[in-house]
Amino acid sequence: MEEIRVFCPATVANVSCGFDVLGLSLASVGDEMVVRKTTRKEVVISKITGQNLPLETQKNVAGVAALALLKQIETDTGFEIEIHKKIKPGSGIGSSAASSAGAVVAINKLLNSPFSNSELVEFAMQGEKLASQVAHADNVAPAIYGGFTLVRSYNPLDIVTIPTPADLYATVIHPQIEIKTSDSRKILKTNISLSQGIRQWGNLGGLIAGLFKQDYDLIGRSLEDHIVEPIRSILIPEFEALKIEIKNAGALGSGISGSGPSVFALSKDKKTAHQVAEAMKRVYAKTKIDFDIHISPIGASGVKAM
Amino acid sequence: MEEIRVFCPATVANVSCGFDVLGLSLASVGDEMVVRKTTRKEVVISKITGQNLPLETQKNVAGVAALALLKQIETDTGFEIEIHKKIKPGSGIGSSAASSAGAVVAINKLLNSPFSNSELVEFAMQGEKLASQVAHADNVAPAIYGGFTLVRSYNPLDIVTIPTPADLYATVIHPQIEIKTSDSRKILKTNISLSQGIRQWGNLGGLIAGLFKQDYDLIGRSLEDHIVEPIRSILIPEFEALKIEIKNAGALGSGISGSGPSVFALSKDKKTAHQVAEAMKRVYAKTKIDFDIHISPIGASGVKAM
Repeated sequence: MEEIRVFCPATVANVSCGFDVLGLSLASVGDEMVVRKTTRKEVVISKITGQNLPLETQKNVAGVAALALLKQIETDTGFEIEIHKKIKPGSGIGSSAASSAGAVVAINKLLNSPFSNSELVEFAMQGEKLASQVAHADNVAPAIYGGFTLVRSYNPLDIVTIPTPADLYATVIHPQIEIKTSDSRKILKTNISLSQGIRQWGNLGGLIAGLFKQDYDLIGRSLEDHIVEPIRSILIPEFEALKIEIKNAGALGSGISGSGPSVFALSKDKKTAHQVAEAMKRVYAKTKIDFDIHISPIGASGVKAM
Repeated sequence: MEEIRVFCPATVANVSCGFDVLGLSLASVGDEMVVRKTTRKEVVISKITGQNLPLETQKNVAGVAALALLKQIETDTGFEIEIHKKIKPGSGIGSSAASSAGAVVAINKLLNSPFSNSELVEFAMQGEKLASQVAHADNVAPAIYGGFTLVRSYNPLDIVTIPTPADLYATVIHPQIEIKTSDSRKILKTNISLSQGIRQWGNLGGLIAGLFKQDYDLIGRSLEDHIVEPIRSILIPEFEALKIEIKNAGALGSGISGSGPSVFALSKDKKTAHQVAEAMKRVYAKTKIDFDIHISPIGASGVKAM
């Protein structure tokens, strides 16, 4: 294979109770990338459409992730990368992770898959580090594995795939205001109370169990975050109104997607996911803020050939 | 039915990464209780063997739990309770929970089961409150439901059952030193770092996923506690040596059972569980501390008729 075109899914990190460890991929929202082999042993970002992002390899998350991979293998091949962005940077649905994950999965395929998914996550994390100073895995893991993933441990990296009920849908609203991931981390407290912690790991356990059992009510009850959401939600206009209207529209639950400003909701079927989208629209129509809304099943696979 | 004899399982609370939310029941370690209907509308503890515990209903955890149940139902029936203790109080394997759970499950059966398991947990928690000032559910829930249980939330009470791989065995060593649950709570810090919290909910998620997947290695990797164990283990002689020898003997992992002093280990088969017991013996034979060792599969059911 000389060239591959891949779909690179958007992802929702944290998923309320799983701060820094949980993430899910969206089946129908994402970028496209084309990666082709070249004879010059280097990585070139040849084209970016849809967004104004740096073409310099070292300044582009896809480039940095690709270089991290190539450092670990002997090859004379170079790679040319085209990125067709559909996910807006800064939206909180894993824009940088999609590019980082897309680059390493595509290159791995072109090299006949010498690396495991777990290794690919480690390479893609280098792209995340460029984007937000911290090498997170909670977006790149679901972008690579697909579905729900749990980062059980960062050191050593230990990714656990969690099954996804087939009918589970996500609705995501992206209010077009800017919140930098790095700023969004700074406002968090470095300490939490033990009792907050107990609630959080109770909920995380409940969410994981709910996903395995396909128990939608349990999934809904577990979508609580008493630690990060009360702080970060201050930065998101109409957050409380959104939460209320999303619930009234029939969603299982909702929360901040990653570090925001996007807000996600999970629903037990497509119809409800659309009702949730309508509710989100009604809340934001009253503001002067532009917004996008995405409706998508949870992706069963991560980055994949198109 | 006029009389019922029940087996009341010992339980391991916390299970390393699930402080205050997770517990498991032991299939072959537990008390026996006999509960019979009487015509006098009162609860009488008629006999206790095996331990010196109060016979006064209001001072006995089984009595208090029974009264909590009877407060919620109109009945002219009274109950006489015999408790045959095999679990030593203060051992950290749910001695009070076994009695509280046994009383309410037995009475519920004699009344033709008007209450759900979740309601029975609430009644039994009143016994726990008498025993340790705090109305925990992490021992009474597995004692009533059997197997692994997660307390997703205390308010409202939300118990989630978690499947148990058939071959999973527990080995428990009870060093005969006294640690009061109330004292053992006092030494805990009221705050934890966010990064400790992240590790804990990553591990709890991993353990729940491991149990569903029957992935023994994942179960083992998830049996970590960086919050409570480093503090409470100070009270347990030879804790570090135990951990090392338990691991060397082939266990998946180990930790403090409840608030201690018992230490539990999980193994993927009976043979390994016995090797772990031998390793525990070797460590404690060097001390002057008396100890008991229990080997048991995880119970598929909680309190049950014998």
